[in-house]
Amino acid sequence: MTQNIYDDEVFFKNYADLPRSKYGHDGAPEWPVMLSLLPELQGKRVADLGCGYGWFCRYARDMGSSQILGLDVSQKMLEKAHQMGADGITYSRQDLETLLLPENSYDLVYSSLTLHYLENLQGVLKTILASLVSGGYFIFSAEHPIFTAPSSPDWTIDNSGRKSWPVNDYQLEGQRVSNWMAEGVIKQHRTLGTYIDLLVSAGFMVKRLVEWGPSAEQIATLPALDEEKERPMIFLMSCQKHDRY
Amino acid sequence: MTQNIYDDEVFFKNYADLPRSKYGHDGAPEWPVMLSLLPELQGKRVADLGCGYGWFCRYARDMGSSQILGLDVSQKMLEKAHQMGADGITYSRQDLETLLLPENSYDLVYSSLTLHYLENLQGVLKTILASLVSGGYFIFSAEHPIFTAPSSPDWTIDNSGRKSWPVNDYQLEGQRVSNWMAEGVIKQHRTLGTYIDLLVSAGFMVKRLVEWGPSAEQIATLPALDEEKERPMIFLMSCQKHDRY
Repeated sequence: MTQNIYDDEVFFKNYADLPRSKYGHDGAPEWPVMLSLLPELQGKRVADLGCGYGWFCRYARDMGSSQILGLDVSQKMLEKAHQMGADGITYSRQDLETLLLPENSYDLVYSSLTLHYLENLQGVLKTILASLVSGGYFIFSAEHPIFTAPSSPDWTIDNSGRKSWPVNDYQLEGQRVSNWMAEGVIKQHRTLGTYIDLLVSAGFMVKRLVEWGPSAEQIATLPALDEEKERPMIFLMSCQKHDRY
Repeated sequence: MTQNIYDDEVFFKNYADLPRSKYGHDGAPEWPVMLSLLPELQGKRVADLGCGYGWFCRYARDMGSSQILGLDVSQKMLEKAHQMGADGITYSRQDLETLLLPENSYDLVYSSLTLHYLENLQGVLKTILASLVSGGYFIFSAEHPIFTAPSSPDWTIDNSGRKSWPVNDYQLEGQRVSNWMAEGVIKQHRTLGTYIDLLVSAGFMVKRLVEWGPSAEQIATLPALDEEKERPMIFLMSCQKHDRY
């Protein structure tokens, strides 16, 4: 089983203070781009892998999705999701490493900032593909390998005051241990090439890749986002089940 | 017209000393990976964009390609290619910014380390797509955006001796001026997301992305390659003309 850091007391408490936890999509600066990737949701069957507090499940409900499944490994997350209103949504606890989904049952599988915790991505992608109808979408975000690669993932500032992100170990795929919001959070570093290879060999067509950075308007509103234009922290992808499957 | 740096005396002289110039594919460490991306060449019609000395054109000839076109903006490069033996190969001088190719005429369009010099990539990709038969391949390498992004593209070394590549300005696409082998070489920085967007919207399916790094065997043979595992300098892509086109 993947490390279930979200049920760690310290992590859960710190996570609760993040803008994206408190304000949902309004607190997630990549959301406008994610919106541009999403297909029409009205009447569609949707599964959200790593649903957390359920912000996306409730969004799909608001957009008229006919069937909504939210999966998460964290009991605390799912309790919070229930408290926020679960009408029309099925929440279920699952370790995504051993993901189980019914075949040929979803128009969209969605996942926000979750896949970089998973070791068995190949198996998970096969299950996602099988769960989609022909032409169905898999749309996800994950931490960017530029962000996950470095042995010392922190900004450096040179003599002229220029901020840089010190990339090394890019080709060394595998486990990274960070101390983000709690000690010893385990993530998996994978190159974009590996993500694309795994997706294509599972049977997906890659439609879009966005290496996310803030817009000028977002930086004007929230100056702390300025450094995010120096290197992408996350990427978003839109993939489609090949119509020959 | 794109800056034709290859006809600059200093650049051309320095370029002639590169292992990949002197030894062709044996001097290009990414060649084994490129080989793994290439389709069968026997009997196929091939165009090479930015053919340089013609190493790939001669390789295609050795593999039995039925028709081989090598294009380059540099007169000096094409003269050198002719000196090395042009039997069965058509070399032609073209500014790739305004690429002209006959429609529906090639099984493979190939390009090695050339696209990052072009401003009008969108137009070039449309011409390449139209020149391919249905199911035909476009396979290319280019400088990786991690490599082209930084304002100061050079390794940094921290107090512990750890080497890093200082990424910044990743989201700032457009011109970069480097002093690689000559003063004022102009390149275009594009994110991988932009490459994929341009390819997909032109009508290509992305088959493989390799963010190249050296193998352990290559490092053992040529220790200078060791730093290339810290960050990718180039990437390779295999794309296919969608069979619905």
